Amino acid sequence: MRIIDVETIVFRYRSRVGTDIAGHAHPVEEHDAYQTLTVIVTDEGVDGYCFGGDREMNEHVIKPALVGMNPLDRERIWQYLYRDLQGSRGLISSGQLAVIDMALWDFAGRYLNMPVCKLLGGYREKVKAYASTMVGDEIEGGLNSPEAYADFAESLVKQGYKAIKLHTWFPPIEWAPDPEMDVAACRAVREAVGEEIALMLDCYHCYSREEALRIGRELERLGFYWFEEPMDEHNVSAYVWLADNLEIPILGPETLEGKIWSRLDWMLTGAADIIRGGVKSLGGITPLMKLVHLCEAFGVRLELHGAHPGNLQVLGAMGIPGEYVERGLLHPMLDYESRTPWLREKIDPMDSEGYVHISQKPGLGMEIDWKFIEENRVDAD
Amino acid sequence: MRIIDVETIVFRYRSRVGTDIAGHAHPVEEHDAYQTLTVIVTDEGVDGYCFGGDREMNEHVIKPALVGMNPLDRERIWQYLYRDLQGSRGLISSGQLAVIDMALWDFAGRYLNMPVCKLLGGYREKVKAYASTMVGDEIEGGLNSPEAYADFAESLVKQGYKAIKLHTWFPPIEWAPDPEMDVAACRAVREAVGEEIALMLDCYHCYSREEALRIGRELERLGFYWFEEPMDEHNVSAYVWLADNLEIPILGPETLEGKIWSRLDWMLTGAADIIRGGVKSLGGITPLMKLVHLCEAFGVRLELHGAHPGNLQVLGAMGIPGEYVERGLLHPMLDYESRTPWLREKIDPMDSEGYVHISQKPGLGMEIDWKFIEENRVDAD
Repeated sequence: MRIIDVETIVFRYRSRVGTDIAGHAHPVEEHDAYQTLTVIVTDEGVDGYCFGGDREMNEHVIKPALVGMNPLDRERIWQYLYRDLQGSRGLISSGQLAVIDMALWDFAGRYLNMPVCKLLGGYREKVKAYASTMVGDEIEGGLNSPEAYADFAESLVKQGYKAIKLHTWFPPIEWAPDPEMDVAACRAVREAVGEEIALMLDCYHCYSREEALRIGRELERLGFYWFEEPMDEHNVSAYVWLADNLEIPILGPETLEGKIWSRLDWMLTGAADIIRGGVKSLGGITPLMKLVHLCEAFGVRLELHGAHPGNLQVLGAMGIPGEYVERGLLHPMLDYESRTPWLREKIDPMDSEGYVHISQKPGLGMEIDWKFIEENRVDAD
Repeated sequence: MRIIDVETIVFRYRSRVGTDIAGHAHPVEEHDAYQTLTVIVTDEGVDGYCFGGDREMNEHVIKPALVGMNPLDRERIWQYLYRDLQGSRGLISSGQLAVIDMALWDFAGRYLNMPVCKLLGGYREKVKAYASTMVGDEIEGGLNSPEAYADFAESLVKQGYKAIKLHTWFPPIEWAPDPEMDVAACRAVREAVGEEIALMLDCYHCYSREEALRIGRELERLGFYWFEEPMDEHNVSAYVWLADNLEIPILGPETLEGKIWSRLDWMLTGAADIIRGGVKSLGGITPLMKLVHLCEAFGVRLELHGAHPGNLQVLGAMGIPGEYVERGLLHPMLDYESRTPWLREKIDPMDSEGYVHISQKPGLGMEIDWKFIEENRVDAD
């Protein structure tokens, strides 16, 4: 069994999501956007798929490295790409590693007609969701005030969500960040949804220790469930200080480099109460399972970042909390459910009780809409 | 897909291995011995097998717990047995947990027609072996003197072994333990096999700190590769002290309770340079992979205990050293290759270069000799 090619399909779709100069998503006018699909082609007549992946990287590094290898040798391939082909550890990004690893898992599942979560060893088939809002904005009808967050939160509860996470205001908004506005939004949402809904805050990631402590104290009074990335995650000692001073669980690290090793340091130092990870930051399902196991050894919870199909399969296999899957990012002017037109069904369908049901279809569980992709292909292949 | 039964087959075989009152294996007169085989029966017409397992435990605890569950939900089953059915954490032994977990992995592999190492994500298909001797004895023609170890080591090298581990003399031998005799045996073996063969020592496990240091210093002079369990493994501070004082790597813990958690403590404290684990002490392949991942996070090597089919599959999937598989226990008067008459072929065949080839057959890779088992069955079922 051998890998015979690594292909990259590029296709166009219509999107109403754009990003500001800080990289934050917001609603914008409908426009053309582009998506890639990485395909691991094998001599078994079964391929593995993962959306994402850089075409140049696939062509010039991944394909020459992988052709001829056994697609089931995921550990060997991951270590080879990471340890041996890194070029100062910068050449192959975590996101790119993740796409390759997940395409290999997808192949294994499709070849064996088995969802990845069951190949890993199943634990559960549904998981609680939280609604994760876009960051604040200054758009009319958008997330432009504490009251706007409160109104949106009420509508999310009506949709079935039992938990909501706010992303508040960031630069390049001129007056942002503002701890008082963050607290005001949190207070307005708590008053709107009552005590039964779990609430979390993910605010500006470069507050000072004192600003973070001030916000955290208010979140404790408002009965928030966790407090996420209020300071630069490279500053471990600040997180140790904050976690020591607050009772509300601190969640992290999310954006920090270093994969399992930086997260080990956070557990060793007590920089976070709940560890954060996901397929994109860790480099795939293979290393994310290693983080799950590390957290189990330390007796620490692990909350995954985003509703990627790979994260969902890991949530189906992890024997420790992971309590939630993150659905979003959500905005009152945008429809989340229609946002992946390249899939025939949503990967993270939520029931009326607020649970996402993990796909038990083969591989990563995606039903790829090949007709849509072929009709919108823009690559020359 | 459901588990519909858990069966225990008991059969007789002829053995020339016996144990002394301390539990150490020695050659004895050929006699009847008994082996069990645990069978996870599913409604798919494919079963999972693992040798070992307690019949009473299977009947009264495991079967009522597992019937109706999905045999692919290995994580859920392991956590249920360990966390929820433990009865003061003593009811279900690590060895029993291991048998159930491995039978479930064997089922998955047989059902999917895939070796467990590839389900886990393959890394390699062969691994270096070391010859692991039985403990010393007072038998004529046995391991009764430093010279006897030297002669045996020479014959092991002729068989292809590139590495040899000595187990030396233990109680109930009247004059044992004796650090000077241990050192004498190590010196005799080194002189017999030369500098190219890797040598390790696993000696009496309750030496004092000073005795262990004295032996370790000699092993450093003799160029030994590791030093295993010379003190009570419950005494972490003694191991930290010994590891601080010696350059030769200390290997452990092997017999200590506590699964991944005690091994995490050993990594945190630096009580060992190379961590020890295996399916039987950890409770199966599922938790052993967690230990592999923990060791990767800490950048620490992990050497597995024994050539169990489950360990071999893990060696095929682990992306860090694990450098060796342990073949044995070996004795000059006994034939190791014929010691598992219930298998149609040896699970750990070694080539002339000293490598064991990991079975790529489905599941745990065992070719069970059903004719032998049926002819020798002694259970009433």
